[in-house]
Amino acid sequence: MKMIFFSIFFLFIILDLKAEDGHELWLRKKSAVPVKVVSPKKSAILNNAVKELQQGWSGKANSTVKLTIKKDKSIKDDGFRIDGSGVTASTERGILYGVFELLRRQQTNQPVTSVVSNPSYQHRLLNHWDNLNGSVEQGFAGRSIFWRGENDLAVTENDRKLWQEYARASASVGLNGSSVNNVNASPLVLKEDALARVKGIADVLRPYGITTYLSVNFSSPVRLGGLKTSDPLDPEVIKWWQAKTKEIYALIPDFGGFLVKANSEGQPGPQDFGRTHADGANMLADLVKPYGGIVMWRAFVYSPTEKDRARQAYLEFMPFDGKFRDNVIIQVKNGPVDFQPREPFSPLFGAMKKTSVMPEVQITQEYLGRSNHLVFLSTMWEELLKSDTYQEGPGSTVARSTDGSIYNQKHTAIAGVANTGLDSTWSGHHFAQANWYAFGRLAWNNKLTSEQIADEWLRLTFANSAEGKTKAVGEEWERNFLVPAKQMMLESREAAVNYMMPLGLHHIFSPFGHYGPGPWYGPKSARPDWTSLYYHQADTAGIGFDRTKSGTNAVSQYHEPLASQFNDPATCPENYLLWFHHLPWDYKMKSGHTLWDELCLHYDKGVQQVRQFQKNWDQMQGYIDEERFSHVQSKLRRQAKDAQVWKDACLLYFQQFSRRPIPAELERPVYDLDFLQAIRPLTFFDQPQDRAATPQR
Amino acid sequence: MKMIFFSIFFLFIILDLKAEDGHELWLRKKSAVPVKVVSPKKSAILNNAVKELQQGWSGKANSTVKLTIKKDKSIKDDGFRIDGSGVTASTERGILYGVFELLRRQQTNQPVTSVVSNPSYQHRLLNHWDNLNGSVEQGFAGRSIFWRGENDLAVTENDRKLWQEYARASASVGLNGSSVNNVNASPLVLKEDALARVKGIADVLRPYGITTYLSVNFSSPVRLGGLKTSDPLDPEVIKWWQAKTKEIYALIPDFGGFLVKANSEGQPGPQDFGRTHADGANMLADLVKPYGGIVMWRAFVYSPTEKDRARQAYLEFMPFDGKFRDNVIIQVKNGPVDFQPREPFSPLFGAMKKTSVMPEVQITQEYLGRSNHLVFLSTMWEELLKSDTYQEGPGSTVARSTDGSIYNQKHTAIAGVANTGLDSTWSGHHFAQANWYAFGRLAWNNKLTSEQIADEWLRLTFANSAEGKTKAVGEEWERNFLVPAKQMMLESREAAVNYMMPLGLHHIFSPFGHYGPGPWYGPKSARPDWTSLYYHQADTAGIGFDRTKSGTNAVSQYHEPLASQFNDPATCPENYLLWFHHLPWDYKMKSGHTLWDELCLHYDKGVQQVRQFQKNWDQMQGYIDEERFSHVQSKLRRQAKDAQVWKDACLLYFQQFSRRPIPAELERPVYDLDFLQAIRPLTFFDQPQDRAATPQR
Repeated sequence: MKMIFFSIFFLFIILDLKAEDGHELWLRKKSAVPVKVVSPKKSAILNNAVKELQQGWSGKANSTVKLTIKKDKSIKDDGFRIDGSGVTASTERGILYGVFELLRRQQTNQPVTSVVSNPSYQHRLLNHWDNLNGSVEQGFAGRSIFWRGENDLAVTENDRKLWQEYARASASVGLNGSSVNNVNASPLVLKEDALARVKGIADVLRPYGITTYLSVNFSSPVRLGGLKTSDPLDPEVIKWWQAKTKEIYALIPDFGGFLVKANSEGQPGPQDFGRTHADGANMLADLVKPYGGIVMWRAFVYSPTEKDRARQAYLEFMPFDGKFRDNVIIQVKNGPVDFQPREPFSPLFGAMKKTSVMPEVQITQEYLGRSNHLVFLSTMWEELLKSDTYQEGPGSTVARSTDGSIYNQKHTAIAGVANTGLDSTWSGHHFAQANWYAFGRLAWNNKLTSEQIADEWLRLTFANSAEGKTKAVGEEWERNFLVPAKQMMLESREAAVNYMMPLGLHHIFSPFGHYGPGPWYGPKSARPDWTSLYYHQADTAGIGFDRTKSGTNAVSQYHEPLASQFNDPATCPENYLLWFHHLPWDYKMKSGHTLWDELCLHYDKGVQQVRQFQKNWDQMQGYIDEERFSHVQSKLRRQAKDAQVWKDACLLYFQQFSRRPIPAELERPVYDLDFLQAIRPLTFFDQPQDRAATPQR
Repeated sequence: MKMIFFSIFFLFIILDLKAEDGHELWLRKKSAVPVKVVSPKKSAILNNAVKELQQGWSGKANSTVKLTIKKDKSIKDDGFRIDGSGVTASTERGILYGVFELLRRQQTNQPVTSVVSNPSYQHRLLNHWDNLNGSVEQGFAGRSIFWRGENDLAVTENDRKLWQEYARASASVGLNGSSVNNVNASPLVLKEDALARVKGIADVLRPYGITTYLSVNFSSPVRLGGLKTSDPLDPEVIKWWQAKTKEIYALIPDFGGFLVKANSEGQPGPQDFGRTHADGANMLADLVKPYGGIVMWRAFVYSPTEKDRARQAYLEFMPFDGKFRDNVIIQVKNGPVDFQPREPFSPLFGAMKKTSVMPEVQITQEYLGRSNHLVFLSTMWEELLKSDTYQEGPGSTVARSTDGSIYNQKHTAIAGVANTGLDSTWSGHHFAQANWYAFGRLAWNNKLTSEQIADEWLRLTFANSAEGKTKAVGEEWERNFLVPAKQMMLESREAAVNYMMPLGLHHIFSPFGHYGPGPWYGPKSARPDWTSLYYHQADTAGIGFDRTKSGTNAVSQYHEPLASQFNDPATCPENYLLWFHHLPWDYKMKSGHTLWDELCLHYDKGVQQVRQFQKNWDQMQGYIDEERFSHVQSKLRRQAKDAQVWKDACLLYFQQFSRRPIPAELERPVYDLDFLQAIRPLTFFDQPQDRAATPQR
């Protein structure tokens, strides 16, 4: 009897998992409401726009939607106007984006009044750190959707189907470019057979308005072309790149251009030949210019010799402001170090006034709990975009400094390092899909609020699913699911900062996978700027990295009044405090607590926040499908465990220096420090479903 | 600079660990106050009594303490009288116990008024489950203090020193017997060279009044003697045992007798030859009788065929009540199953009216978190001793049914399965020493309260240590250390019941070491009564083992009014509810909660209790030496982790059947069920210091 019960039980689970694996993302509405669409012509992009309307229309039955392509002063680039009669745009892409906006408004219960919407950035790219062997650097959702192996390059029907789903999803949030291989680029991507596969990708992405880009290895002329040098000023080298560029454009006439990581973390670059970043970038830019291509040149550079890694990109790039071709864009990570849970914005934003500069953010959660932690990154990006650089007076936000509002950039762009993989969820965690969604939405409109984005995403992703199997969408659903789920999303990044690196702490993770805590990490054999000790500088006197004028003076890279504000602990925002200051353990915080107590309170709060997420989530059972409910429930458990590991590791480690008790009212650590120093947090709690969260495709 | 700091820091730790490793137990007072002792004669025991007075006296300087041996109607057995002038007793042992009591009163600030104290039980034994190869069954404090290996039997000076410390500690709490090898006995213990070692042990234990006993294997005549049978009625077998008995008594004239586990869990016994427990026990009893020896025959028997293991000892032994020799004592485990966190008392207590019956309790924490969890067992034993059997009317407690108050037993005795080992703490956890202490104190006086025992032990163990290095003992010390530490001890067993097996649940542990949770354990290949499924009987209808009249009728083994009280869920104490009843998940508890909710609340409460222990303990830093403080702090962390594992495992497993949510206000699980089912909880959190808690001797 008991055995029979079990069999039925498990069968139920298996059947249901197939029913809802999250693969449909936020594109779920299958409407049967008839609509008449009038399109100006047939084309791949317009056909997709028509198809979207026909399968997703939930307006008045038998309405007529007119798609109109015409010039309009108020419509810029791929922008659009929607109104009662249809969609107007000056490009086919604009029509497609307008259609997605129209459907989104219908599906999220927003009014479809007359609206003009123009993109904040011309180029809105995903950067895929996908290797040709099929692995994904910092990818936590299975293997690459683009690559299977260097010897398995033929394009299959399955490939095309998946790429098409991918392109549709990206287009639906306004993205228009994909760089399809890792910035740590293999020269082999430029081989004929690999380029044939890239053409295959481009052909599937094009009908959704997605332009294809490639990351290139600066040593390709030597390593692939057999030349003796890759010196960018060498005529043979230029010739080689010229031929390669021509070959690419012959295959992909609308190829977008190159993304380059040069002289960074061991990657080759022009400095290897005594040349400058400008020499390297300009050489490539000149070659793609005739085809309308661009070069995105990354500013993520640092060497072990300089005393403060956070200063280096600025020091290395500022001298070349104005020296780059107009089709070069300097791609700058949001913060001066490397995608930490919280960094102040990179001082390059707004400072390079004569160069196109684009922000790079990370959608994949390299430092934010991988695909195990629910961390909605939109609030982090919103914080970045709204940060005021003061470079051209108050209001010179990072957004306005990069989107053309202030500087007359030839090109405006933004890039997000993608979190896609073959996992059936695409992103490893159902809520990680929201980060892909949010990046697209912010790239389109950098003034959107995270609250609005979360609201949209939750409605699109969960309201239109599993109908008949969960409580009906309505006022109760909104109160008991939408509101608390949104609240959790909006709070989640601050929770992660709290349990990982509060008060401006950064780069104190374990060397095993950038996942768990490792504040103790600092072997003598390691590059100092790859250790945790370098960044937290904890000793019995205090903690924090002194970047003030009496320290490394990194503060001076910021425009006044920021330089002075950051320089003084009394005016420095407390969430950046230990980024800029080394302060005594009994430093008095604004709350009245000592620095040590405040640190403890933050770590503890992070743990409590995740526990509260768990409680809230469990209350939502029944309001969405059971499969995604359970999956997220399990992920939240892992997150709660990990938060405890972080709290215990950091507090017990720093307590060796602070020599102060953890405030008596706080829950005590449950791990011993030496235990935490011995384990690999990444794998310690691993279980099968962490490694393959849902069925792999 | 940082390196130098570290070196000093670690040196400090190492030096300090040596300074306080807990090896001195509760015997710490080194007093310099001079005292004059008048002893009636010189003897090994009396010399030890004099020595204790001289080194531990903290009364008035230059007092005279007179030790007097004389008959006195009010002094029974090894009892004593203490008063202003000294100690009076009728035996040398009595003098020794009186001296220890006198010193204890001085050291714990109790008045030394005229007091007569007689032991509740004549025989107060530790049972050591130590194997000849040096391992200890269910021992969690390192290897055996008695055995190193079957080929390493020579007695060394180190052996003698350790045994002497052991004997002194046992005597100080009134114990007077030690069975020095495992009840799962090797026949080899009766070989000449092993017996020579036993003589060595006995010679060291004797001066502290400790009598030596041995566990014997019932097949020894075949396996050691080379006979064809071990049938207890076979003349050759009797002859063999007779010769062996003579050999032992020649070596150890005051040898105590035999402890026998027969026909139990694969051990041989008289039933193998168609004989009865009485046949077997009486044969051995007749042989030791001339020497004044006794036989302790264990009633821990059960076979896989009977439908309810809890009924079996009673069924098997009751028919032989009155059939045993007067120097046989039936040794009965406290509960009917096996040392679970909570069991009702064994129905054999009080029921065998014509046989000497002795309780066996377990000091080592086989089912109570090993030496990782702080669980003060005194409250459990107090609960047992005060349980009313009603066998001779109200007030027929287990204590009175076994200590001679009710029945005219020839011998009264009590045994505790020891928790000693070579670990420098003796017991693996500093607080596990308190269980050794408490067992001795209750064996001496089964009316003592756990509160008094805890108070004594804490003062003796922590107040007399590390003087000058911690806050001075006094009113503040009592308020901030003694009171909360005592509270923690007194609450600790209930906390363990809460996070392991509340409401009468039992035997739902993991098969890996009786340590972690394993409610799911029930492979088809296993004996049903060795699985968890057999004991919790959870299904969608409810949970619990139906031992009512309509179930296995185990209730009928109890005397009225207990049988009726246990039989009715409305009158059954709720802490035994699921021991006796299978009840629906929505059964209404006295609290008003459903059974499911109540179960959840108990598990959660257990976790919260351990967390509160942690908070309280951390507040005590500075009131005791740093070494033991840190060690216990680390153990409490492990306990908190384990409590979470227990809670999550049991709630998530049972939730599959209850199909009800965990009450919304409770903290959510942080482990997934399939993860917990895959790990071995015993080793999952293991770290070096768990395996060798403190330096091994």
